[in-house]
Amino acid sequence: MVALAAGKDWQSVLRQAKDFGVRVVAFWDEEAASKAESEKHALGLSRLEIRASGEGVESLATLEDADIVVHAIPGFRGIRPLLSALARGKKVAFAGKEALVSAGDLVAPYLRKDRSLLIPVDSEHSAIFQCLQGERLEDVDEIILTASGGAFRDRTLDEMRAITKEEALCHPTWKMGPKVTVDSATLFNKTLEVIEAHHLFGVGYERIRVVIHRESVIHSMVMFRDGSVKAQLAVPDMKLPISYALHYPQRGERPVPKLWPILGKLSFELPDTERFPCLTLGYEAGRIGGTAPCVLSYADEVLVGEFLAGRIGFLDIYRILKKVLDMYEPREVTCVEVLEEEVRRMDRVIRDMLLVSGT
Amino acid sequence: MVALAAGKDWQSVLRQAKDFGVRVVAFWDEEAASKAESEKHALGLSRLEIRASGEGVESLATLEDADIVVHAIPGFRGIRPLLSALARGKKVAFAGKEALVSAGDLVAPYLRKDRSLLIPVDSEHSAIFQCLQGERLEDVDEIILTASGGAFRDRTLDEMRAITKEEALCHPTWKMGPKVTVDSATLFNKTLEVIEAHHLFGVGYERIRVVIHRESVIHSMVMFRDGSVKAQLAVPDMKLPISYALHYPQRGERPVPKLWPILGKLSFELPDTERFPCLTLGYEAGRIGGTAPCVLSYADEVLVGEFLAGRIGFLDIYRILKKVLDMYEPREVTCVEVLEEEVRRMDRVIRDMLLVSGT
Repeated sequence: MVALAAGKDWQSVLRQAKDFGVRVVAFWDEEAASKAESEKHALGLSRLEIRASGEGVESLATLEDADIVVHAIPGFRGIRPLLSALARGKKVAFAGKEALVSAGDLVAPYLRKDRSLLIPVDSEHSAIFQCLQGERLEDVDEIILTASGGAFRDRTLDEMRAITKEEALCHPTWKMGPKVTVDSATLFNKTLEVIEAHHLFGVGYERIRVVIHRESVIHSMVMFRDGSVKAQLAVPDMKLPISYALHYPQRGERPVPKLWPILGKLSFELPDTERFPCLTLGYEAGRIGGTAPCVLSYADEVLVGEFLAGRIGFLDIYRILKKVLDMYEPREVTCVEVLEEEVRRMDRVIRDMLLVSGT
Repeated sequence: MVALAAGKDWQSVLRQAKDFGVRVVAFWDEEAASKAESEKHALGLSRLEIRASGEGVESLATLEDADIVVHAIPGFRGIRPLLSALARGKKVAFAGKEALVSAGDLVAPYLRKDRSLLIPVDSEHSAIFQCLQGERLEDVDEIILTASGGAFRDRTLDEMRAITKEEALCHPTWKMGPKVTVDSATLFNKTLEVIEAHHLFGVGYERIRVVIHRESVIHSMVMFRDGSVKAQLAVPDMKLPISYALHYPQRGERPVPKLWPILGKLSFELPDTERFPCLTLGYEAGRIGGTAPCVLSYADEVLVGEFLAGRIGFLDIYRILKKVLDMYEPREVTCVEVLEEEVRRMDRVIRDMLLVSGT
């Protein structure tokens, strides 16, 4: 391993740097970088190079001696490191969905040249990527994303009004960070995945479907033009898609228990967009195009933060997202600066909305 | 289409020859060939060449202008046409499982050179073949064949004693010929498929499993060394695997309804080898090797015939097959004549057994 980056958890990074003989690390947080710089000697890491800030992190994505870049930066700030890695021709094991959702139009030219430059780590997209091996993209009829249904799949709309942060942070299948867990509960996460699938595989929104599959055993499916469907199944454990992305095009040793014996039942239901209207937003933003998906994704970052801070309710997330999308005038995504301008501008608009709405 | 062959249904073949502008046809049955020869002029098929007997049929498998040979000859007599087609380097769309089960050791050298010479038409093996596209055979951990469970999946062993021919010919999912329908009811068909999978994909018997999947939506699965499983799903309709084999490596237009929406439940159970002991025979014969699978497969041809003629009971099929396998001394399969000698010899042995057992 050549390099490691993090937001501010310098202790973990230094420990891992030692374990894996890493040569350079970076921290988004400048204070964390200084802390690491002053503590590295005591840990026998005197020769470790430490870089700071967004630029520092981004610089790791283009290191000469890195064969593969693992991108797991959540949110808007993942865009520049992603684009830098691709511009330098790096293979990217990719788990930073908001970056692709936001900057899909800038990533598209790289993927048109080589679809395997971005190897998805999201379990759903890894499943689709695996199902597409040895197949021609022009033979794809539909992509079928599976969804566990999130923590509130059995709640009525009325019961959802009073959902607390603690309830929203408890996912039935996967253990994940807080933002993505809330996004799973609203199904906003799934709508981001729809946009992600659109960009990763070049498939139109009208041909991407979502099905609720509570057992999280089938991680997604592809239907081909002849009516044949391929699905990828495994125990729900992120170690597998991570291993797949790192070993691709080969397969590594088994990092998870075997699924076999496959017993019992696998169930499938259509999603209820009355109770989970967030699922429709990605399709809507995707069809609007331009900067709309980026602004939708960013607005959700802000609103989930507000929900987790206890300042808005669970159902307000959709309500305000929908308002933002309805009033938004998209621009064409010609460069990353356009995205940054729009996000800065809309950040003020959303915060004004929050003040006015008095929540 | 260049050529057509059949056992004795000369009317259908002449009609199809006319529809598809076929240049030569063949009939196993010499009488059917003469009949066709004398009737062809009245049908405006004076230039149609008609060949007769096993040699006539076999000769069609090597025609210069045939790009792909569809092999759907059930039973032992499919061996020579299969080997001739492979020896001439033809791609074979393959549905004649007994031929491969019997002559697997003679087919192996061709498949070692090119696994896609035999494109399976059996829905299970087509599923596995599809799941293996873009994957390396050395990454395969297990093959999981699905089975509907046959017509008697819910009968007790006691209830099975009295099963009639009429009951056995009624399959819950697939409409097929009488021999394969009875083989589905005993699960002998599945044990042949285990041997077939072994030869098609070069995977050891200890890594081929069977799971009962009543809905017949998942047609089979492959587990890879990293624990990832790929499955192929579709509505149960043979038009799809046939279309796949004919279009491979591309995919044709959809010949079947869409599976979507995939709703409801898919269930999986372990097979009950107490009630369906035939399932174990293929593994046993496969491990014995040599001419054992051929003799097992041939013995089943004889015994299913006896059952359909009302001369033995449903459970006698297993009982006698097991007896044959237990007393059988296998030979090495060095050429097709060895198989023919053993089948001739064992035919007498089995018929003697039937007389002695007084059934």
